[in-house]
Amino acid sequence: MEVIKDGGITTPKGFKAAGIHCGIKKRKKDLAIITSEKESLCYACFTQNTMKAAPLKICEENLKSSNNQIKAIIINSGNANACTGDRGYQDAKLMTKTLAKCLNIEVSKTLVSSTGVIGAYLPIENILDGIENIVKEISEDTKNAKDCAEAIMTTDTFIKEIAVKIKLKDDAIIKIGGISKGSGMIHPNMATMLGFITTDCNISKKLLEKAFKECIDSSFNMISVDGETSTNDMAVIMANGEASNNKIEKEDENYKLFKTALMFVCSSLAKMIVKDGEGATKFLEVNIKNAKNKNEAKILCKSIINSNLVKTAFFGCDANWGRILSAMGSTGVKFDQNKITISFCNNAGDIVLFQNGEPLNFDEKLALKILKEKEIIINVNLNQGNEENVQGWGCDLSYEYVKINADYRT
Amino acid sequence: MEVIKDGGITTPKGFKAAGIHCGIKKRKKDLAIITSEKESLCYACFTQNTMKAAPLKICEENLKSSNNQIKAIIINSGNANACTGDRGYQDAKLMTKTLAKCLNIEVSKTLVSSTGVIGAYLPIENILDGIENIVKEISEDTKNAKDCAEAIMTTDTFIKEIAVKIKLKDDAIIKIGGISKGSGMIHPNMATMLGFITTDCNISKKLLEKAFKECIDSSFNMISVDGETSTNDMAVIMANGEASNNKIEKEDENYKLFKTALMFVCSSLAKMIVKDGEGATKFLEVNIKNAKNKNEAKILCKSIINSNLVKTAFFGCDANWGRILSAMGSTGVKFDQNKITISFCNNAGDIVLFQNGEPLNFDEKLALKILKEKEIIINVNLNQGNEENVQGWGCDLSYEYVKINADYRT
Repeated sequence: MEVIKDGGITTPKGFKAAGIHCGIKKRKKDLAIITSEKESLCYACFTQNTMKAAPLKICEENLKSSNNQIKAIIINSGNANACTGDRGYQDAKLMTKTLAKCLNIEVSKTLVSSTGVIGAYLPIENILDGIENIVKEISEDTKNAKDCAEAIMTTDTFIKEIAVKIKLKDDAIIKIGGISKGSGMIHPNMATMLGFITTDCNISKKLLEKAFKECIDSSFNMISVDGETSTNDMAVIMANGEASNNKIEKEDENYKLFKTALMFVCSSLAKMIVKDGEGATKFLEVNIKNAKNKNEAKILCKSIINSNLVKTAFFGCDANWGRILSAMGSTGVKFDQNKITISFCNNAGDIVLFQNGEPLNFDEKLALKILKEKEIIINVNLNQGNEENVQGWGCDLSYEYVKINADYRT
Repeated sequence: MEVIKDGGITTPKGFKAAGIHCGIKKRKKDLAIITSEKESLCYACFTQNTMKAAPLKICEENLKSSNNQIKAIIINSGNANACTGDRGYQDAKLMTKTLAKCLNIEVSKTLVSSTGVIGAYLPIENILDGIENIVKEISEDTKNAKDCAEAIMTTDTFIKEIAVKIKLKDDAIIKIGGISKGSGMIHPNMATMLGFITTDCNISKKLLEKAFKECIDSSFNMISVDGETSTNDMAVIMANGEASNNKIEKEDENYKLFKTALMFVCSSLAKMIVKDGEGATKFLEVNIKNAKNKNEAKILCKSIINSNLVKTAFFGCDANWGRILSAMGSTGVKFDQNKITISFCNNAGDIVLFQNGEPLNFDEKLALKILKEKEIIINVNLNQGNEENVQGWGCDLSYEYVKINADYRT
């Protein structure tokens, strides 16, 4: 596998993109498009929040009626079109209709995604004019890919893109590209996560869905900025088959190669989101080792990265391992605390704080040195099962997070 | 029912208390005692956190072996004796043994409770000396009750006590007193909630347990400062029967009078905890009206008061009702958003923000006026069931919360 320098959403064959300003935000780019000339097999994961925003409902309908064959996605930032009732639904529909008309494709072959303020109606005229303009801009240029990645941003401070290529057993070269956006908004309102992945790999519907689901579960679903599930979260993959590899139809070596690369793309994008978390000053990687099973390990891992007390302790460079144990204990997962070892490590060193159920008399100076670094690895070895390692990523909780989220909407 | 001025833990007949400094904290009071000359029927609720601290284990054992007959509780603040392995367990045991010896009672008739830093061993010599001293101080004086309430505090900024009296149908007067402590520590570590209630009411074991459980579920269990469950949370009630009322043995009028008064005591103590939440600048009361059932209403209510995004919005005086809906949606509870009405109110006014699934064009100036007050009532009317009203209480999330919890342990 090779990471492609300056690669992004248009790196895989046959995909084009663009990003422009259409007038939702004051000046910044706020409208993005991704297209595939060939019909793309498409699979999408949506938020578990029952207050699902209007565009997500349209996506579900279109994926169903097109049998997962998609040619274009339109995305706006600055307004989430959530909690906007029937008018919001009609607005989202109008976006797909206009997109389809401008591209001369069927409406069912389009998707729509929104992120931004909740509970405000879209400035729909600006957006419809914007769609007419953006379709004229689409190309596979690197610049366009970057514009697209930029136009989906809200309070993100940097664009999030990546692309990789791998050689399959039949010597075919396939590429996977992706962009994402993280937490926060121009008018802070929601920590919405969006992820869009493209690939030219030729793969069966069943296996694309399986690989993407598993990769999302171990990447985007294992990060936390503030434990909030947005009304607009979505992750989409499009596979147009243009790499002309022998179609991947069983879980063979080629499938494994594809899935490993996809996991790399998803987890890279997920980690970028955490690193750009609202007000984050530290990146935390939590490893839960030797749990009884994956599900329990995930619950423990998420509880640690979601805990305000853990997060504030890391913000304050406090080696407060008690809060880690307490966050684990609050999950209800049963474990034997007498077998647990907790350690922190990074470039600055490695320190064990708790072992076999007893607190250790550790070197506070070394702990502080480790905690002052920007990236900290927290290892929790349960020593009570064979689930080797489950990873999750989070950030600290800072004054800045409170500031960003306390600001007025207007 | 009458609230007794300056009433507290020693207001009910036959209870004594004291609070002293024994040397866990630098200068502040850190050791408290509550005793009943007569054996008291005792019921306790413990944390759901599986990393239960050592003293809680001792309490469970003693309640079992004494058949819920307790005469004394010793409580220390400044050190939680949690995550301290076998040594912590032996230390907690030693505290009850010393207490029993000094009072000349059976060990099984004692309880022990701790709150403070996690993962540090108790300065056990200081505490054992302290127990020998504190038993000489016990009395029913108001001053002693206040010393006791003070000695269980950690980062609390004020003592939390209350007492009420009610007249039963047989003209007997019974009293209920209580103290509690809230979130945070001298060396901030855990948001531990402790609550101790005394009553001279003569009541059966079954009904005392039933009333206390139900009151806790609607009071202490419906508040949130930061959504963290401590390793040391506990709430205890002691009923010594000294009021000599006809024993309450069925769910009659007297039981209802007792339970209403107990609920008042518990919810008053719970609200004081929220008002004194770490860094809190605002007190939030959430009312979930007309849900399908109590359980769903509680889940929705807790999700709102636990949401960092909701809490920071209130800190910033932002009428961000979208975050309330999103927090509700993230629970997985099914509801029809088209029937929901959301409004805020307090002394400054009353404003409807969302009605029948559509955002309202509300008066931002009035909203700001309401949000600038210290206490805000959030009404969420689901309009889809007969569960009249479920209440919960929380506070905002401020810079100060981050500051308190980011400070070094040492």
